[in-house]
Amino acid sequence: MTRLYDDPSAFTEDMLAGFLDVHRGSVAGVPGGVVRATETPPGKVAVVVGGGSGHYPAFCGVVGPGFADGAVVGNIFTSPSAQDAYSVGKAAASDAGLIFSTGNYAGDVMNFTLAQQRLCQEGIDTRVVFVTDDIASAPPSDVHARRGIAGDFVVFKVAGAAAEAGYDLDAVERVARHANDRTRTLGVAFGGCTMPGGAEPLFTVPPGRMGVGLGIHGEPGVGEDELPRAADLARRLVSGVLAEKPAGSGARVAAILNGLGTTKYEELFVVWRTVAALLAEEGLEVVAPEVGELVTSLDMAGCSLTLVFLDEELERLWCAPADTPAYRRGRVEPRTAAPARTASAQSSAQSSAQEEAAAVVSPSTPGSRACGRVVVEGLEAVATAMAEAEGELGRIDAVAGDGDHGRGMVKGSAAALAAARDAAGAGAGARSVLVAAGEAWAAKAGGTSGVLWGAALCAIGERLGDDRDEIAGADVTDAVRAGLDALQRLGGARPGDKTMIDAFAPFADALAERVRGGTELAAAWREAAEVCEAAARATAALRPRVGRARPLAERSVGTPDAGATSLALCAHAVAGVLSHAR
Amino acid sequence: MTRLYDDPSAFTEDMLAGFLDVHRGSVAGVPGGVVRATETPPGKVAVVVGGGSGHYPAFCGVVGPGFADGAVVGNIFTSPSAQDAYSVGKAAASDAGLIFSTGNYAGDVMNFTLAQQRLCQEGIDTRVVFVTDDIASAPPSDVHARRGIAGDFVVFKVAGAAAEAGYDLDAVERVARHANDRTRTLGVAFGGCTMPGGAEPLFTVPPGRMGVGLGIHGEPGVGEDELPRAADLARRLVSGVLAEKPAGSGARVAAILNGLGTTKYEELFVVWRTVAALLAEEGLEVVAPEVGELVTSLDMAGCSLTLVFLDEELERLWCAPADTPAYRRGRVEPRTAAPARTASAQSSAQSSAQEEAAAVVSPSTPGSRACGRVVVEGLEAVATAMAEAEGELGRIDAVAGDGDHGRGMVKGSAAALAAARDAAGAGAGARSVLVAAGEAWAAKAGGTSGVLWGAALCAIGERLGDDRDEIAGADVTDAVRAGLDALQRLGGARPGDKTMIDAFAPFADALAERVRGGTELAAAWREAAEVCEAAARATAALRPRVGRARPLAERSVGTPDAGATSLALCAHAVAGVLSHAR
Repeated sequence: MTRLYDDPSAFTEDMLAGFLDVHRGSVAGVPGGVVRATETPPGKVAVVVGGGSGHYPAFCGVVGPGFADGAVVGNIFTSPSAQDAYSVGKAAASDAGLIFSTGNYAGDVMNFTLAQQRLCQEGIDTRVVFVTDDIASAPPSDVHARRGIAGDFVVFKVAGAAAEAGYDLDAVERVARHANDRTRTLGVAFGGCTMPGGAEPLFTVPPGRMGVGLGIHGEPGVGEDELPRAADLARRLVSGVLAEKPAGSGARVAAILNGLGTTKYEELFVVWRTVAALLAEEGLEVVAPEVGELVTSLDMAGCSLTLVFLDEELERLWCAPADTPAYRRGRVEPRTAAPARTASAQSSAQSSAQEEAAAVVSPSTPGSRACGRVVVEGLEAVATAMAEAEGELGRIDAVAGDGDHGRGMVKGSAAALAAARDAAGAGAGARSVLVAAGEAWAAKAGGTSGVLWGAALCAIGERLGDDRDEIAGADVTDAVRAGLDALQRLGGARPGDKTMIDAFAPFADALAERVRGGTELAAAWREAAEVCEAAARATAALRPRVGRARPLAERSVGTPDAGATSLALCAHAVAGVLSHAR
Repeated sequence: MTRLYDDPSAFTEDMLAGFLDVHRGSVAGVPGGVVRATETPPGKVAVVVGGGSGHYPAFCGVVGPGFADGAVVGNIFTSPSAQDAYSVGKAAASDAGLIFSTGNYAGDVMNFTLAQQRLCQEGIDTRVVFVTDDIASAPPSDVHARRGIAGDFVVFKVAGAAAEAGYDLDAVERVARHANDRTRTLGVAFGGCTMPGGAEPLFTVPPGRMGVGLGIHGEPGVGEDELPRAADLARRLVSGVLAEKPAGSGARVAAILNGLGTTKYEELFVVWRTVAALLAEEGLEVVAPEVGELVTSLDMAGCSLTLVFLDEELERLWCAPADTPAYRRGRVEPRTAAPARTASAQSSAQSSAQEEAAAVVSPSTPGSRACGRVVVEGLEAVATAMAEAEGELGRIDAVAGDGDHGRGMVKGSAAALAAARDAAGAGAGARSVLVAAGEAWAAKAGGTSGVLWGAALCAIGERLGDDRDEIAGADVTDAVRAGLDALQRLGGARPGDKTMIDAFAPFADALAERVRGGTELAAAWREAAEVCEAAARATAALRPRVGRARPLAERSVGTPDAGATSLALCAHAVAGVLSHAR
């Protein structure tokens, strides 16, 4: 289990501070993550990788010559926010464009895509490559729904080497996608990891058994089996991965036998002995294999085999030199013109964030300001409710997901409350308070729920505006509907997919219906919250949609959706405030 | 726990096979361990490190330019045999002499010293440097009794860098000893590791507690305490190590924050954050810190802080480039004349070992050959008894030691039996059968008991000779006494130190007394075995001597000594054979 931490909620920040101290000669911290200590030179494509933390040396450990130019560092097992990704991308990019690459998880997809859009708007040509190497997470017919696991390392390495070799943006993107297409991983897990401060592991595997294809946060796999001898495990991993050998691939493969944290080097070497023999029997030549801990999950027990079906170009890039804090290969030739990053460059993203916070308050009406103060009260109630429910939400989320929902809701609601208080204190109206809250929620919580809640709050605010003198019940129902629309647009989920939509849509409908029928807003909201709660409970019966970055979560049937559950709790919390406010 | 293995008794061999396959470009296997893939050039001192395995990347992971020339690889947590050390030393040495360096454990001290003696006899000037960095294992007044833990890495690195820089043998030895004198480590453990095939961890720490100063195999430390916050742990480690700051040391230190296997990178970075701040507060400048897994103990939970109080020379050597399978620093300049090791060179040690095995059988008398056949029967009984007692002996040993005694006795007795059978089958007499058995025991079991049993059997054989026609009871008692003497000379233990001597001496006395009194040998042996068993049981009341490489094992009071217990079992097993043989 994870035993060493100070404040669990600041674990990622504390970890990053230690990492940056140790490696201060080669990397530098920027808001949202890490970049190389030297500036990206003109003409070089920047490669920025990332995702949630807890996977060291992925991702900040591979920032350096021949590999990544920067890493976006989210909270443990939680996507970094779009703001984080934007900040690191901005700090890393020179004039030749930017490649983001991350594993294919819902939160990462949304946040990195939003950051990409913002950077493109600012004139930095940005591409995003999502890694989908985990063959157990979706069938071959639905490759785009697959998760990224240890194959992240391959795609990042290839992209980094290509950028270092002078490829242009189109070419780096092409070869990164090609590397992803040629990379397959199958993993097994024997035991779950524990979040800092958590008393129980995120998931467990019965003693003497193994989960086959389990995700690196305990997301469901394809089955459970008896823990085999090392040689039999090697056989299973090799045959599993080779069953998906891409058509037309040759006889040369790169390989990673990756330990997840508690399955140690000695055991990996024992397994590798048989993996190597089996690959040789298949007539495959292994090029520069890696056996060790490259993409971990805190103290999770388990391992995975990744094969990369090489062509000449992929082999060259896989074997190219690299020199990063946690991974080195070959001899990196010193770059003649690699100026050290100046302190001012490092802090530019920081100060731009601060400037945003200190932006001028938009003019607003007294009525809108009054509404903004109610929003603050609502967010107080929401933050309190989330703090109380954190553990329970985490437990629900751990059934089908990665157990980070409670932590994310607490971080997000607390940040939203603080931002809303600041805005209201500065005299902001309803729109400005809600937009400040939404942006803070997305930026601080990261993850899937963070970006969705952020988008919903911003949309609600935009609909309410700063300029109304009176806000009627119908305005609120319209605004709630606008929030729901924003959330559906961004998340892409439909009713019945077992997401928060399944509680949000009935809530919005019930609220609108009651307000239209003449019920006073506070009462209407209270009744809608009841509907929302019932709908959240009913999500227990649903099967999650097998779609992009949703796990094959058969086992989650019987458990309500965590996002729907937290939404219902928030609806109730706000209902209490409205009863008093009116 | 350790879950992946094929045959647990072949775990080390299987692990090495995998390691050598992955790193075939840079290292090569030789009997007993690993050497660089390139030959040690003329004029360069060879540095050979080693010890038991289970500590990856220590020790085979640090073989390469700028670091070790070779690593002797023992079984898990068990000293390699003198034969192993000799073999690797012989393969690694060029014409400028050899440094062995290993942690200060009884088995390693004996086996590496024996190998040193043999290499010196063969004209290879060999020095041995034992690492004693663990400040919790003995008080400052008894520094030579301290164990080597993560400080191994420092001493090996400094010695390797010095040899690479062209230091001569005296100078490499001097700077290695100097590095050891300037290196201090304090470790804590939160949970024990599991031997491959074991169902239970070697030791446990109660949940929420930590063992302070626990050895890397669970050997006793200085106390137990509540598991603190990361910052408080950092404070404790820093103050503990700084309390032993050597007189006259300056303001610059090297540092290692080492994870033992299950305490992960993220946690170590969190702890490092405070360690770095505290060292800065003390006015110390940290040079090239290492935070990660450098000297592990399978899946043990815990970490240690090592500080090296630098001078200009130590700093230069600590920072020098290195390029090994598991550890790289800086840019190693390619050596112009580094010929690849030829296959014939790699196999020379192997074939010399085979030649020894196929040595001409010494002439012997029919009576001595008959005695040799009784020896084989005795070893059959011993091997059977050890196989039955393996688990129990391991459990006893785990109380105060590293739990490897049962496994070592099984490996050793089985190897001795096989060698004795071969020798007897080839017509060898008593001496030759016993010497073959003793050499095989020491070579295959490694560890402390292996080298001691090997020496005792060889001495018994020498005393019996191959040339007697009849072997009387008095000859046997004399031979047993010679075995006891050899064991005391080599191990340095005295009666009352809680070692196998405490059972062996009463056995030898009782046997001699009864034979002198006219009792027939088989009956005398049976009675002496009873005395031996009682004496072994009585060792439960003894406190182990605090001496070189003996842990501060207060907690072992109440548990009999594992070596004495296994000796008594062997004495009984042989008694059964003698009853039938006569």
